[in-house]
Amino acid sequence: MNEVYEQARRAKEVAPALAALPTPEKDAALTAAADALTQRAAEVLEANALDLDSGRQAGLAEAMLDRLALDAARIEGIAGGLRQVASLPDPVGEVLAGRTLPNGIRLRQVRVPLGVMGMVYEARPNVTVDAFGLALKSGNAALLRGSKTARRTNEALVAVLQDTLAARGLPREAVQLLPSETHDSVRDLITARGLVDVVIPRGSARLIESVVTGATVPTIETGTGNCHCYIDASADLGRAIAILLNGKTRRVSVCNATETVLLDAALPAHDKLAVIRALQEAGVEVHGDVETHAAFGARVTPATEADFAEEYLSMDIASAVVDGVDGAIAHIARYSSGHTEAIAAQDADALRRFTSGVDAAVVACNASTAFTDGEEFGMGAEIGISTQKLHARGPMALPELTTTKWIMEGSGQVR
Amino acid sequence: MNEVYEQARRAKEVAPALAALPTPEKDAALTAAADALTQRAAEVLEANALDLDSGRQAGLAEAMLDRLALDAARIEGIAGGLRQVASLPDPVGEVLAGRTLPNGIRLRQVRVPLGVMGMVYEARPNVTVDAFGLALKSGNAALLRGSKTARRTNEALVAVLQDTLAARGLPREAVQLLPSETHDSVRDLITARGLVDVVIPRGSARLIESVVTGATVPTIETGTGNCHCYIDASADLGRAIAILLNGKTRRVSVCNATETVLLDAALPAHDKLAVIRALQEAGVEVHGDVETHAAFGARVTPATEADFAEEYLSMDIASAVVDGVDGAIAHIARYSSGHTEAIAAQDADALRRFTSGVDAAVVACNASTAFTDGEEFGMGAEIGISTQKLHARGPMALPELTTTKWIMEGSGQVR
Repeated sequence: MNEVYEQARRAKEVAPALAALPTPEKDAALTAAADALTQRAAEVLEANALDLDSGRQAGLAEAMLDRLALDAARIEGIAGGLRQVASLPDPVGEVLAGRTLPNGIRLRQVRVPLGVMGMVYEARPNVTVDAFGLALKSGNAALLRGSKTARRTNEALVAVLQDTLAARGLPREAVQLLPSETHDSVRDLITARGLVDVVIPRGSARLIESVVTGATVPTIETGTGNCHCYIDASADLGRAIAILLNGKTRRVSVCNATETVLLDAALPAHDKLAVIRALQEAGVEVHGDVETHAAFGARVTPATEADFAEEYLSMDIASAVVDGVDGAIAHIARYSSGHTEAIAAQDADALRRFTSGVDAAVVACNASTAFTDGEEFGMGAEIGISTQKLHARGPMALPELTTTKWIMEGSGQVR
Repeated sequence: MNEVYEQARRAKEVAPALAALPTPEKDAALTAAADALTQRAAEVLEANALDLDSGRQAGLAEAMLDRLALDAARIEGIAGGLRQVASLPDPVGEVLAGRTLPNGIRLRQVRVPLGVMGMVYEARPNVTVDAFGLALKSGNAALLRGSKTARRTNEALVAVLQDTLAARGLPREAVQLLPSETHDSVRDLITARGLVDVVIPRGSARLIESVVTGATVPTIETGTGNCHCYIDASADLGRAIAILLNGKTRRVSVCNATETVLLDAALPAHDKLAVIRALQEAGVEVHGDVETHAAFGARVTPATEADFAEEYLSMDIASAVVDGVDGAIAHIARYSSGHTEAIAAQDADALRRFTSGVDAAVVACNASTAFTDGEEFGMGAEIGISTQKLHARGPMALPELTTTKWIMEGSGQVR
């Protein structure tokens, strides 16, 4: 028997019980899990130390080791996340629509859990706990496929979560860790039709692409963010530069970081130059068309097609001069990953045309791309940022982990 | 250059213009298309006659020929469908959520078209026009892959639609027919990542499965309906039989037809017998466990696993005796396609347990499964019935052909 299918079958088996859990029971379990994580922090840190040792021996990059590393404060933060999810409204049972049909049938559309939710993600162990919390609160069973490098940490975390569930009479199978030794478990998860209701990949563009194109179960594409910031000739230049620098440098490794600056050709040369200089003074390497930039006095690194097409996730930015709003829209249509696109402008028509013409989850007018985030949007949590158009687009939280069920109440009606 | 990709590229090119169309322009185009269909009915019927001739020569079954056949009345019905879509509210531009963030950014979530919508469907030519109408009204470009047997009819219909668009200054590429000679065009359509935003298959279970599992673009699974009707011991037997017969015999070829009857073991023998006899008297062949049925006096055809697992789409029904509501839920969990599941019962607890325990798009309490339909639900139209859980579940109409865009309006905020 295939191990992943077997785990998925058990998840599906407990899903109806999870769907029927009253909100106070779910919230109490989340709070208890937060407490248990704090109490058993030593166990988790011990497992984490082993993962870090193996990672160092395997020559993992410092940035990767940092993503993997836990300490008491990080565990407290993870536990705090569970408490916050406990405090959010329960989406399950919400009535979204309803009417009485002319024949007397009462019809209503009610939010229900998706059922079994799979996550495929990379090193960060906090995703293990976050995904569990959001899944439980929305009444779903979670199948978690973390990275091999975080295996022992994830096992320790899931042991704490499962023990908490069991102590409260809830099924341990509400959260299960899938094998991470090989890619086989990913393949099995994304092809478990009839057992898995959705798979959400989180991580590199390559990971996401391989999950989405290889899956036969429904997936939600998340998080590849090749975000642009267009500076219109009508912009307040000081504010435009502030937005651009914030989007680029606040945290370079995240999906809402700005990766390309688009300069309106109509900007005066000294304004264009001021933008490029501000980036360079902040330590950002600018990649652009060398001649175009020289024409307004800026020196940049020569850009290739890949500079425009891919995320840097580093202190680099691509730069292009475009022909006004329409030029910006055309450039974005060609290279955007559909995450967040920003415009700095004061002209109302430019803002309106950009907002309607750009096809992305989020359009930021005179605001940093860094604001695309579930917590910033007031959702209280985030399982990922959808860059696809079906089901959810932009930051996803609890309601996005539900589906609906239509319920007809009749008295013997026939058609 | 791949022909389908080229068509998809042109669809994507015109999508922004379609997304920006004011409602009155869309409605006028729909009404004009309805008028044009009536005026040019002779052309369409001529093409249809050729398709019917080829179909007869190829030995197409009578039922298939009937699906394919048009006459003046059917064309009037198709045109009427366009007029009805014109009268429905435009979902584009609807603001679904909005708030002002603590930092002063005004955030709103607005409905926008998906962009490019693909349909893969079988013989019925009315789908060609229905899909165009719903796509245009929701601001989407439509790529239509109808069946080879309806090729000339579909070409004639699309010519009328495109001419109407062109005469009104709208892009002909708003609706394009894909080649139907081979399966290649389906494969190209469902793998055109970055060009196609959603593909909706409509037709046989095999067609739907092949599209959904072969696609790398987002798809919506529709219409396989292995619907059950459970008769609880607490049911009003007369009403239960009426619901069952209606669900089974109203139209046998549709996805909301009832395919299995589940009899509560606690029903008196004469009631169970009355149900089976009523089916048989209506001309329905009952497939069940021969011994179980003999025990209460009914003679049935022996049932195989396939009888329970597959849709008949004919005057046949599977029958099983189950152990109350829980037995019904377990049987349905094993065989359901997630479309519509009905219960006949008077006991409130039985109704409640069935409603919450069954995992399907629609649960019908004391009502026929035949009511699962966009028009019956008051949606005014229907592009298909989603049996998946993401994006849309149950009948889909105009709002289900849209996505959302978050728009932030700031004044230079940084994070």
